[in-house]
Formats: sequence, structure tokens, C-alpha cells
Amino acid sequence: MSGFYIGIDLGGTKVATVLTDREGKILASDRRPTEAAAGAERVLDNICGSVRAVMGDTSANQIVGIGVACAGAVDIKKGIIVDTPNLGWKNFAINQALEERLHLPCALENDANAAALGEWLFGAGKNTSDLIYITVSTGVGGGIICNRQIVHGRDYAAGEVGHIVVDVDGPLCNCGRRGCLEAISSGTAITAQARKLVASGRPSLILAKAQNDPAQINPYTIGLAAAEGDALAKEVLDRAFYYLGVGVGNLIQIFNPEKIIIGGGVSKLGAVMFEGVWQVVRANTFAHTIKGLEIVPPVLGDECGTIGAAAVAVECFANHP
Amino acid sequence: MSGFYIGIDLGGTKVATVLTDREGKILASDRRPTEAAAGAERVLDNICGSVRAVMGDTSANQIVGIGVACAGAVDIKKGIIVDTPNLGWKNFAINQALEERLHLPCALENDANAAALGEWLFGAGKNTSDLIYITVSTGVGGGIICNRQIVHGRDYAAGEVGHIVVDVDGPLCNCGRRGCLEAISSGTAITAQARKLVASGRPSLILAKAQNDPAQINPYTIGLAAAEGDALAKEVLDRAFYYLGVGVGNLIQIFNPEKIIIGGGVSKLGAVMFEGVWQVVRANTFAHTIKGLEIVPPVLGDECGTIGAAAVAVECFANHP
Repeated sequence: MSGFYIGIDLGGTKVATVLTDREGKILASDRRPTEAAAGAERVLDNICGSVRAVMGDTSANQIVGIGVACAGAVDIKKGIIVDTPNLGWKNFAINQALEERLHLPCALENDANAAALGEWLFGAGKNTSDLIYITVSTGVGGGIICNRQIVHGRDYAAGEVGHIVVDVDGPLCNCGRRGCLEAISSGTAITAQARKLVASGRPSLILAKAQNDPAQINPYTIGLAAAEGDALAKEVLDRAFYYLGVGVGNLIQIFNPEKIIIGGGVSKLGAVMFEGVWQVVRANTFAHTIKGLEIVPPVLGDECGTIGAAAVAVECFANHP
Repeated sequence: MSGFYIGIDLGGTKVATVLTDREGKILASDRRPTEAAAGAERVLDNICGSVRAVMGDTSANQIVGIGVACAGAVDIKKGIIVDTPNLGWKNFAINQALEERLHLPCALENDANAAALGEWLFGAGKNTSDLIYITVSTGVGGGIICNRQIVHGRDYAAGEVGHIVVDVDGPLCNCGRRGCLEAISSGTAITAQARKLVASGRPSLILAKAQNDPAQINPYTIGLAAAEGDALAKEVLDRAFYYLGVGVGNLIQIFNPEKIIIGGGVSKLGAVMFEGVWQVVRANTFAHTIKGLEIVPPVLGDECGTIGAAAVAVECFANHP
């Protein structure tokens, strides 16, 4: 079925919307403040304004459907945002609200799953049937495609790759548990570890790369120091990527995927991360399980949110109109 | 579609075969030596003899299909046993060989996946769409049902729950890696750990329960000692089930399943295992992810191999004749 699709990346601070074709090509885009503090009606007005902006002269009957991607817990079947910390919404029937206002069918998805779907349909995961998408950023999140379907689980709570335990004696995680992948390998964890070691007085180039301002220590400045051979920076990154490799290795043993996509801010460190992960993966998995496996960066980049949301619409409506 | 199904559990020492109905009810069964050492032709003769024995007076046109379950690596799509240590076969086209001899359609599956399928269709996992089956026995194996399909992966190598790493500093595993779930929580690992601690001279009831014969120390005799409050026995089991809980918890975070079935010899210890696992699962997973989750023993018991094989036939042929 030809026609156009709309993808809405509904965040706590901004609404980003795109109009795409069936292949995820962006034909128009819009970005505006969410204004969450002004209440749900205002947010819905902003979403609808953004949708109308990308539609321009396109008539509604050329639009096959709308995909909405949102952080937090969502009930896909009912089209309900169960709990999204970014907006402070609980049990909000977003699909119904948008369908009433826009008279177009809506499909909802968690943002990490939507990004995975985007990479699967339009990006680095095209033509695979088993794919794992991981984003290593402030936190660690992900989405898993298995047998050409998103792994949703009983309550749409599956795919919490950031909260698998990789070290039972590891540091406390934001989630209250100990040794989660996110507590060791996220950008936040890497930064905290580097700041702690630098503050302890160990010599390192990191501080110089951060303009002597500990607040500017982050994965990027740590990466700069590591690239110049700084021992402390390398130690910090090695540890983070070692445990990322442990988590990825376990996912491989479980899913035997064709491709693993690792994105997010930390992944921009490039080879130092991918090689670190591969080293552990080779040690911790069966040779026949990683035969032909690729571990690659995403291709959608900063548009993964909006194109991911459009992918949700394509997946939901393109073949089941 | 009504009709009958045949399930063949092809092991290294025995061929066990059943005739079942569409609901997995056993109507006839047969068991005979595999005679693997006598070569593939003899094994095939034994399989066909066993199939004819369970068919009795049932005519071939009443049989919808045959399912074969086999340990090791199998290529389901091609019907090839890629590598089965039990029989010493490599790249053996079992489906074709049996179809030529029996003139009935054959479907092949790995034994752990077949057991998972059996519990899903006919056992403890009925009416679920997301299920994890784990067997804790000499080794630790498993099969995963996600979105009502077996998680096979690219090369049918998925579901290796025994070889996810749960302790990066853990003991060496038979697979050559370190800290696999199997290396800590299998019956073999539990037994080895108890023998080691008993041999070190620590006082324990275990030896008395094993008739003072270290060779008779096993999960059962360790369980007897633990039930009487023996500190060493409890320590050994606690450690094994703690890490089993870590592995199960990670699978829950990834799959958000409706049900987890834990079978195998070690699971016969019952409450001490299930409670140990639950304790870690509660600590390591999100409350909304385990809402309504059940962790239960299997119901197919010793027939999980044969009924699982029949389930492979039902799943493959009942709805796609």
C-alpha cells in the first residue's frame, strides 16, 4: 500500500514530527516545545499542530497512519501511555485522543522499541529477522526484534537490556538494584567513575581535556584522553565496555541474532567501544553463534526518534490497512 | 485438523517414540536402544521400527506428521542434524532419511526447544504467548517461546540459557568459558562444589546422607542434608540457586514472560530451589515486569522428550497441513 506516514517523537521538552513515505524517507519535519507543564490539552494541541505542519497540503486520505513513540511504559494494544516520567502522565489514552482530533489511525510504541523498529525497517537492520538494538547514552536502553516481531512480553515491559545484572557485586543503579548494565556502562556511569578517579588525585589527561572543569568530564572528553593513551581514561572505558560486552554476549547466547546495533551518545566513541565489546563477545559466546554476526552503529542517527515513530506506523498499518 | 502425531526422542542410547492425538495425549509408546555405534543405517532402522510399533494398526494416512527431537545443533529449515554429540553425527539429513522410509512428513527440533514447545502446547505453559523453559540437570538448557514462536535465532543457536555468564569471575564451564550459569547451578556443578567442601574436611551431614561414599553425593543427597538444616548443604544450594535466580531475573528483564518453567533433576528439590530463585528475581527485576509471573515446575515430567517431539509435529503440521 502506498501513501504517507506520520511519526511523532513525543518527548518531555519537544514534540518532533515527520512525514515519511513507505520507505521511511523524510518528506517534511516539524519540531516544537511539548509544554508539558501547561497540561495535557496543550500538549495535544502542540502534537496536532506539529502533525498539521508536516502534512502541509497533503490530504488526510493520503496518510495511512500515525506512529507515536514515547519514553516509559506504554500499553500498545490499548494505545495507552501507562507511565511516562517525561510528561508526568499516567494511563493516558493517547491513541484515542489523537484519533478524535486528527481522524487518522494511531499506533503507540515505547521509544526504544520504536528506534529498534526504525533501524530494522529503514536502517542498519534491514532484511534481518533477529536484531538487537541498544542505546548507550545517559542510560542504557534497547529494543529487540525476534522472528520479525518486537519482543514486547506480557505487559510490554520486555527489552530492558539496561537493567540486566552483569555484576552481582556491582554499583547501585538508579533503578535501586545492583550491578545493572546501566549502572556500569551508561554515559552517566562512565562519567561518574572518571570524576571519582580524577578527584582521588590520580594523574590523568582527562581534566585537561575537560578544560580543568570536572563538570566537563564526560564520555567525549574521556575518549579524547584515552585516544592519547591516558591510562586512567582507558581503564574507565575498558571497564564500561567490558561489562557492555558481557551484556551483549548474554543477549547473543539467548537470541543468536543476525545483527546488533549499538547507538546513543557513548557509541560515538566508535572503535574503542565496538572493539571492547567484540573482545568480550568472542570470549563469552559460542563460535557458531556469532558466525556472520555484525555489531554496528545505527544509521538513522538523530532522527531515530521520529523515523522510529514513522516505522511504528508503517509496521502497524502498511500491511494491515 | 484431527489425526495422529508421532514424536521421536532421539537420544544417544535410546529411541523413545509416542503416538499422540492433537492434544498431546499418548496413545501408544515404544522405547528401544539407538545402537549408535552400529552406524546410521541401524539407527534409522531402529527409529522406523519404533515408529511402526507405536502406529500398530493405525494407517499412515491417519498420521499428520512426525516430530523428531535431538540434542545438539539442528537446522530446522533444512531438516539436518548439524552436530549431535550423542550420536556423533554431523550434517545428517534426518528428515529426508525418515521421509523416504516412512512416507510421512518430518519436522526436526532441538530437544530443549521441543520440551519447551511440549510444555507450551500441552503442559504448564498452555495459553501463554511468552514462556521460558529451563532444565537444570547435568547441564542447564532451555527453550524460549516469544510472541508464540520459538526463539531460534539466525542459525538455530538461540536459547542457550545455560551459557549466559552470571559471574564474570566464576568457575570454568565445560564450554571453556567462565561463570556460565551451567558452571554454577547445574547438578554437576552443585555436586562438584559439595564434594569439594566435604573433602576439605568441613563437617556436614551430606556424607552420611551419601552412605559415606563421596561418589553418592549428588543434588538429591545434598537436598536431604539441607532439609535437616545442614549448613554446608544449604550454602551449596543457596549459591547455586542465587545464580540461577540472577540468570532467570535477566531473562525476565529481557522477555517479560508470562511463565517460567524450571524442570530437570535439580528442580525436583522443589521449594528450596523455587524460593531461592524467587528471592533473587524479586530483588533484581522491576515489580511491573513480574506482576502475575509464575515460576513453576513442568507437567510433562519424564515424557517431556517424546511429547515435546510430538508437539513439534503438531506445531509444524496441525495448522499448516
